[in-house]
Amino acid sequence: MTQTMKAAVLHELRTPLKIERVPVPEPGHGDLLIKVTACGVCHSDLHAVDGDWTPLPVIPLIPGHEVAGKVAKVGPGVTGFKVGDEVGVPWMYSSCGQCEFCLAGMETICKSAEATGYTKPGGYAEYLVAPAAYVGRLPEGTDPYAMAPILCAGVTTYRGLKRTGARPGQWVAVVGIGGLGHIAIQYARAMGLRVAAVDVSKEKLDLATSLGAEIVVNGAETDPAAAIQEQIGGTHAAVVTAVAAKAFEQAVLMLRPGGTVAYIGLPGGKSDEIRASISAITNWELSVRGSNVGTRQDLNEAIAFAANGLVKATIRTAELEEINAVFEEMRKGRIVGRVVLKMA
Amino acid sequence: MTQTMKAAVLHELRTPLKIERVPVPEPGHGDLLIKVTACGVCHSDLHAVDGDWTPLPVIPLIPGHEVAGKVAKVGPGVTGFKVGDEVGVPWMYSSCGQCEFCLAGMETICKSAEATGYTKPGGYAEYLVAPAAYVGRLPEGTDPYAMAPILCAGVTTYRGLKRTGARPGQWVAVVGIGGLGHIAIQYARAMGLRVAAVDVSKEKLDLATSLGAEIVVNGAETDPAAAIQEQIGGTHAAVVTAVAAKAFEQAVLMLRPGGTVAYIGLPGGKSDEIRASISAITNWELSVRGSNVGTRQDLNEAIAFAANGLVKATIRTAELEEINAVFEEMRKGRIVGRVVLKMA
Amino acid sequence: MTQTMKAAVLHELRTPLKIERVPVPEPGHGDLLIKVTACGVCHSDLHAVDGDWTPLPVIPLIPGHEVAGKVAKVGPGVTGFKVGDEVGVPWMYSSCGQCEFCLAGMETICKSAEATGYTKPGGYAEYLVAPAAYVGRLPEGTDPYAMAPILCAGVTTYRGLKRTGARPGQWVAVVGIGGLGHIAIQYARAMGLRVAAVDVSKEKLDLATSLGAEIVVNGAETDPAAAIQEQIGGTHAAVVTAVAAKAFEQAVLMLRPGGTVAYIGLPGGKSDEIRASISAITNWELSVRGSNVGTRQDLNEAIAFAANGLVKATIRTAELEEINAVFEEMRKGRIVGRVVLKMA
Amino acid sequence: MTQTMKAAVLHELRTPLKIERVPVPEPGHGDLLIKVTACGVCHSDLHAVDGDWTPLPVIPLIPGHEVAGKVAKVGPGVTGFKVGDEVGVPWMYSSCGQCEFCLAGMETICKSAEATGYTKPGGYAEYLVAPAAYVGRLPEGTDPYAMAPILCAGVTTYRGLKRTGARPGQWVAVVGIGGLGHIAIQYARAMGLRVAAVDVSKEKLDLATSLGAEIVVNGAETDPAAAIQEQIGGTHAAVVTAVAAKAFEQAVLMLRPGGTVAYIGLPGGKSDEIRASISAITNWELSVRGSNVGTRQDLNEAIAFAANGLVKATIRTAELEEINAVFEEMRKGRIVGRVVLKMA
Repeated sequence: MTQTMKAAVLHELRTPLKIERVPVPEPGHGDLLIKVTACGVCHSDLHAVDGDWTPLPVIPLIPGHEVAGKVAKVGPGVTGFKVGDEVGVPWMYSSCGQCEFCLAGMETICKSAEATGYTKPGGYAEYLVAPAAYVGRLPEGTDPYAMAPILCAGVTTYRGLKRTGARPGQWVAVVGIGGLGHIAIQYARAMGLRVAAVDVSKEKLDLATSLGAEIVVNGAETDPAAAIQEQIGGTHAAVVTAVAAKAFEQAVLMLRPGGTVAYIGLPGGKSDEIRASISAITNWELSVRGSNVGTRQDLNEAIAFAANGLVKATIRTAELEEINAVFEEMRKGRIVGRVVLKMA
Repeated sequence: MTQTMKAAVLHELRTPLKIERVPVPEPGHGDLLIKVTACGVCHSDLHAVDGDWTPLPVIPLIPGHEVAGKVAKVGPGVTGFKVGDEVGVPWMYSSCGQCEFCLAGMETICKSAEATGYTKPGGYAEYLVAPAAYVGRLPEGTDPYAMAPILCAGVTTYRGLKRTGARPGQWVAVVGIGGLGHIAIQYARAMGLRVAAVDVSKEKLDLATSLGAEIVVNGAETDPAAAIQEQIGGTHAAVVTAVAAKAFEQAVLMLRPGGTVAYIGLPGGKSDEIRASISAITNWELSVRGSNVGTRQDLNEAIAFAANGLVKATIRTAELEEINAVFEEMRKGRIVGRVVLKMA
Repeated sequence: MTQTMKAAVLHELRTPLKIERVPVPEPGHGDLLIKVTACGVCHSDLHAVDGDWTPLPVIPLIPGHEVAGKVAKVGPGVTGFKVGDEVGVPWMYSSCGQCEFCLAGMETICKSAEATGYTKPGGYAEYLVAPAAYVGRLPEGTDPYAMAPILCAGVTTYRGLKRTGARPGQWVAVVGIGGLGHIAIQYARAMGLRVAAVDVSKEKLDLATSLGAEIVVNGAETDPAAAIQEQIGGTHAAVVTAVAAKAFEQAVLMLRPGGTVAYIGLPGGKSDEIRASISAITNWELSVRGSNVGTRQDLNEAIAFAANGLVKATIRTAELEEINAVFEEMRKGRIVGRVVLKMA
Repeated sequence: MTQTMKAAVLHELRTPLKIERVPVPEPGHGDLLIKVTACGVCHSDLHAVDGDWTPLPVIPLIPGHEVAGKVAKVGPGVTGFKVGDEVGVPWMYSSCGQCEFCLAGMETICKSAEATGYTKPGGYAEYLVAPAAYVGRLPEGTDPYAMAPILCAGVTTYRGLKRTGARPGQWVAVVGIGGLGHIAIQYARAMGLRVAAVDVSKEKLDLATSLGAEIVVNGAETDPAAAIQEQIGGTHAAVVTAVAAKAFEQAVLMLRPGGTVAYIGLPGGKSDEIRASISAITNWELSVRGSNVGTRQDLNEAIAFAANGLVKATIRTAELEEINAVFEEMRKGRIVGRVVLKMA
């Protein structure tokens, strides 16, 4: 094995990544060294680079948390993995394993959790190390490029839908039909839910219809909450994948009595604050619930839906060297579906 | 039976109630005529009189929705009740019985629900009519004056606690230790929860301690959310009984990861709007849930706890003629516990 | 309207039904008179006629509880229905409306529940009366013959699946692919579940495959529990639609750890008793749950799935005069899918 | 540290334990060496010695799985523990950490779970080794002798009660008021449940009353299910701590409609099989659920209740050398409460 590898590294917030050669990391006890095949580019990577969130990422940083690859080396104390196994590394890098949240299978809210490509080196590189206990297994024969976005966009929308508690046959509003939203629709359909899609782009709403949305509402032309209330009396659930605070506020108003909205994305910086009416929430017993990426069990389930052909991200591939250009496109909102870096 | 009765009637918003003689109502099909023994005075009555909420109450209005009394006459088609039965009439006057919420035992969010003392004549009178299907039964031998506040303050806090999903042994923050809060603590204790009480009055916090709160925080002296996070790492649940929007906002920050706050009260007018951080909700998977009074099943359960001696409201009685003075005291925040009108 | 109607009447247990003219019933307060269009023939009708269950049916009896028809007359006090509305009458004829089960939306376990075609006259007749509060609405334009079986076979299997708590993506074993089982597979698929079908007939297993079962096991050729454990490590859930006690016992053994089996059907008479291993239940934390037809909310949901084309019963029609012959076929196990009586 | 230790060892099934000196075990990666202070004697230890269960225990065996002690040595790779920390080791020795049950916080049904004092050496010794990730922490200053029974009898009854889903204010039947039952009553009370206690001994029922049971039924004098149905219309829940198959069967009949019984104990050998009526389960929508000891989160919660003084086992201490005599007493059913071995 080579001693060094190619990686895209952030040395200072709000500067371009640099393509460099850095040492291949060594797996510690319980770790795997993984040769990266594909790594999706997520909007969160841009938030990391731009320093939008508190706490800030650990710098120098190799971003990337939608990693599909193969086990290259097995660290000491690892059982159940061998060289060549196909694996996926998500945002959820590790957690303490001992707190009440870890013990209850809610490790994503562990206060000591580490994040791939944020507090730990990620997948914009030829290799990365990850703890075997937190790595997902990819079924043999699946396309790693198609699977990469499932590791974040997939599991995040899937858990969000689960967190709404919506049951098969009920209505869910998917607010924002971008990289997350177009996947959310597919999970919703696979879960037996009926979908009302909301966006401001006709093209994206057409995609929503083709993916099985029964109702589409263009928020640029009409008040989406009023339209949904009028057509079906409100939805039982909503997931907000858009990043504008206004979308978060509107989603609450799309609900029917007793409904639940899941917040799964994060607006950057100042737009973090929403305003909500207490009386609407109280009188109609609405629920607003946060949902943070997904647990390992969520990941396995999300992968299984995709492996069974029920969910398929729209992707296009790019070389690692193109990453700064991809970020520029992302800033301008010009990316349709997901860009996946081709590492091998 | 006499043909007329004494009642306190609101003829115009924001004017004093007038004590008058009005006709005794006649029970229709499925209704009971109830002779009022006791009627609690709830802050919502003041909101009704002041026209704080949308939609406005139906005027002329006889307020009052914490009614303990006895069946005086049984309308046609009623089974299971007889003259003399002890009953309670809550805010939840009736609902459609046919919608998805009614069928699921969530009748308080029925879009066609009627409210006692708001859209229908209430208990500030010698008699009122209520549909037998929505009336609570009071166990024989219970004190009707002590039981009256259970019919609103009791059931509302009880359902709020249930809606948080907190399990025995977990922590709940009770924010505001007034008419609702001092009852919430007792329900929480009876449900096996551990209580952190928050108020700005030392006297009320002393009451909280005497009722079983293990932690008390004076919000006038310290940041209550920070204090609770520091002492116990946050609560699993919170119920907000205060009416300041700030209390609603702080309660979210008192939660530990995965926690749930239930909103059970309503600030009046302009303070209805809260601001919340999307990233706090998402990152820590917090939930904000509304809770609207309580269903008939909640009411029966709330009554049972009280009848078994586990919950006891602090009350003082007043005559119907004193109602406007009671309202004045309430406006000034001078009432400790609950005032109950002595009707018989 | 005519004064008399044609009906199939049971005058003595275990004797053929007699086709007679009887008075058209008059709707009381809250009731609807319904002109029957179609009435499914359910195995329970045969159990009623044969006196297999305790308590016995009320005789003389007009059986039939899968009734699709139109409102012919609206009784006093009914709101929300008018002559001509398309409605369905299920087994769940009425309940007390006051007990803890009714208030919680679990009216099928009300101790005072009445049953259509068992304790009350059913749909083997040109007309029947039913309480408006318990009648299902059929979406306009749906085929009443196709919809009739949904009113019992549909809602029963749907609730059974719900009672298992299985989530989309999980495996459910459907044990017995007859009148209920072939519908259960379709509900399971619409709910996002993966299906393992078990029967002793190759023809029925072929039907299961065509309806979306991914695994089929012929219990005449192999131990079905062992086969399912070997292929997928057990199912998360199972519903038993077969009537042999052995099927109920085997279903428990098909589960993976933590799994749940729902019992939805009833063997007749002496085979009511099953044997189960306490250690299997305890060690693997299995659950055995009963499921009794379905609530009104279940019925509305089950109808919606069918109206949306996701569930379709295999039926053949027959005349009321053929009912005793249909019963004979049923006794011999020769009916494929469901027989529906053509009443109008 | 000494090189050898005193231990009670089983060399052949159904023979007395031998008190021997054996090597002190060495903690491996992730393990703790624990100096045993107290070890409870559980009926399961007798089942192990007698070879009552399949699979059989690993022989030679040091039994004991209610271990309270102090960390004597910290193995490599362990964080968060130091020498002197007070810890408890339960039946749940370890699990795979990777399967769907482990990931969901249901590690007790992991197919690769190991059991303390059954497949791994237990606490009838001066020292034992246990994986840090599965060890419970005992709050400083708690009495280790009082705490030992919480580690099995406590957590097992606590999880059983949780698995019934009973809510505060509801009724639970505790069937069998022995070592487990007298603890179950205390957990039930701490969880806000109302208790109906069933046993055949007046002395044990008196204990039940003193612990807060509101109803006691002597099964030797009356049919307990009929008595409970008559007095309160059945319980919402039941936990069976008795070992007679008949008790398991009766418990189902104590339930009100919709009720749930949890099986938490295991009869030995041939009495493993119960008979149940399918129609009772189906018609009344009863649930029978297994519950297997408790997870790490359950353990932490169970310990917290005890540490707060809400649950206290009745114990008496014995020397390790007395273990065979204690087993004899246990076989004869003569032990009141719990015997705890005094190891230090």
